[in-house]
Amino acid sequence: MPLLPEPVQHLSACLAQLPGIGPRSADRLALHIVQTDPAHVRQLAAALTAVREKVSFCRDCGGFTESQPCPLCQDPRRDASCVCVVERPTDLITLEKSGAFRGRYHVLGGKLSPLNGVEPEDLRIAALEHRVDRDAVSEIILALGSDVEGDATANYLARRLSSKPLKVTRLAQGLPVGSGLDYTDEVTLERALAGRRPI
Amino acid sequence: MPLLPEPVQHLSACLAQLPGIGPRSADRLALHIVQTDPAHVRQLAAALTAVREKVSFCRDCGGFTESQPCPLCQDPRRDASCVCVVERPTDLITLEKSGAFRGRYHVLGGKLSPLNGVEPEDLRIAALEHRVDRDAVSEIILALGSDVEGDATANYLARRLSSKPLKVTRLAQGLPVGSGLDYTDEVTLERALAGRRPI
Repeated sequence: MPLLPEPVQHLSACLAQLPGIGPRSADRLALHIVQTDPAHVRQLAAALTAVREKVSFCRDCGGFTESQPCPLCQDPRRDASCVCVVERPTDLITLEKSGAFRGRYHVLGGKLSPLNGVEPEDLRIAALEHRVDRDAVSEIILALGSDVEGDATANYLARRLSSKPLKVTRLAQGLPVGSGLDYTDEVTLERALAGRRPI
Repeated sequence: MPLLPEPVQHLSACLAQLPGIGPRSADRLALHIVQTDPAHVRQLAAALTAVREKVSFCRDCGGFTESQPCPLCQDPRRDASCVCVVERPTDLITLEKSGAFRGRYHVLGGKLSPLNGVEPEDLRIAALEHRVDRDAVSEIILALGSDVEGDATANYLARRLSSKPLKVTRLAQGLPVGSGLDYTDEVTLERALAGRRPI
């Protein structure tokens, strides 16, 4: 006889597929839910399906949205001629939280990684080129990660966009704010030195 | 403008109510779910509601069950005259996993805690007395925690059941298996000494 009722085991297996939830946490959560007010459980189940039904990707920028295009792409106060390219929709949210950027975004949907089978045609690069022409984009800021694949993707995009009349820039690499030299690795120090600016 | 679409924020708030999931994990899970295959999300939502609808508490022992009474209470191979009293349904599962007990269980639903407003009538004590009479129980094993409230609950139950013709025992307290004396606190050592057994 199984120790946990079958529905609890099934729920635990479903929960264990979520990131950061191991088999033991999944069991614990499933057992918590058996003992939770049914109205709360129904609310959680409804919230799950609602998210998947109501939220989709903006046809322009590729970020999360409930409307087409998304509020950011519709906002006339944002500068359509400056486009910030990010890997994932969550990167867009992180940047937008900083409040430092007032242009538009473009989500690539990943970074080039031939070893993992991610080729240029798997990313939203053609859509980016289409936007460049349509919106007369004058600057593209590549806000990609500073790892090897981020570097490769940035270089590929810069080369591919080189025929267009626009500036392609990349986020500065250097010391994180509030950090000392002793906590900084050599490659970062080298880049910080190379990117030094007059004060 | 909110950064996360409203359904994502709502889902995150629902998830953050679960134990062990803070606001940041909840955001991360909600954003993961937006990007998950809709069929998986529907399956998770269905598993949540199914658990709450199909699993209830056994009317006899108070453990989780899909049928009334639960398979453990129905099993004729288990000794109905020996009842193991636990605090929570999850304690029943923990004990049953050990495979060390072949009697029946009784879930109290908590332990006495006057400071938190848990009085004897809030626990399933009357139901336990009813079972004692109905099943001619000859031994009750109190498998309660070894904290102050567990001690108080065990003493209360032993006193209340003292008029019945049965033996009331409690789980032994002593060294955990595989542990050395140097890792054991003084109170545990005192109890282990008091409970010493001939070999």
